[in-house]
Amino acid sequence: MFDCIDHVGIAVAELDAAVATYGASFGMELVHREVIAEHGIEAALLEVGDEHVELLASLSEDSAVGRFLADRGPGMHHVAYRVADIDAAFADLLARGVEMIDSAPRPGLRDSRIAFIHPRSTGGVLTEIVEAAAR
Amino acid sequence: MFDCIDHVGIAVAELDAAVATYGASFGMELVHREVIAEHGIEAALLEVGDEHVELLASLSEDSAVGRFLADRGPGMHHVAYRVADIDAAFADLLARGVEMIDSAPRPGLRDSRIAFIHPRSTGGVLTEIVEAAAR
Repeated sequence: MFDCIDHVGIAVAELDAAVATYGASFGMELVHREVIAEHGIEAALLEVGDEHVELLASLSEDSAVGRFLADRGPGMHHVAYRVADIDAAFADLLARGVEMIDSAPRPGLRDSRIAFIHPRSTGGVLTEIVEAAAR
Repeated sequence: MFDCIDHVGIAVAELDAAVATYGASFGMELVHREVIAEHGIEAALLEVGDEHVELLASLSEDSAVGRFLADRGPGMHHVAYRVADIDAAFADLLARGVEMIDSAPRPGLRDSRIAFIHPRSTGGVLTEIVEAAAR
């Protein structure tokens, strides 16, 4: 169902500092940065081959990432798997009885389409599926 | 420095149940299972393209995974990046001032070679590098 691990999402306290750390420590290049005002976060994509680390900073304490940081501190927030056809994958997951957070695929970073799976269906792991935008 | 995300490590309460869940929900196939007595864990590798989900169950409460489960419950435990040459990557990380947990690369699952990076160097994320065994 999944082609590869598309990215890992990491909640960070300070986005600029985390981008600098991952660049200096691992040579990871910043390839995209985006504010998602609707979700109260700013995200930075760092390149790992053709996959990514997605650093997530909260723009408000009551965002999902803000609550995660308050509860658990900085660290791994979610894992995302890449799919070729998110509509087909979404329907397949529903048919398998997987509990989705999103009621349908929705826009993600860089014109991707995404949907989140509830941690109740994955043993406590917030899990995302991603279909990349055509490039 | 890193070729791709090699795997995500997920701490689980019950290995058989988690393997069954990931199989039923995501169609992920079990490709390897191994007890690492020295670390008090049993690991299962599930296929995601040519990458993996690594499910980790504790065989004793005082293992690192046992303590993780007691503190935080089931969930994401670490991320691993694939490298072509772990000796070169290890030396490069040291030269960049990255704090390693392991003092040198050591054997991992399926004759891979691995080393762990301290979460202090990564904004709270336990991070591993992996060189796959020649196949």
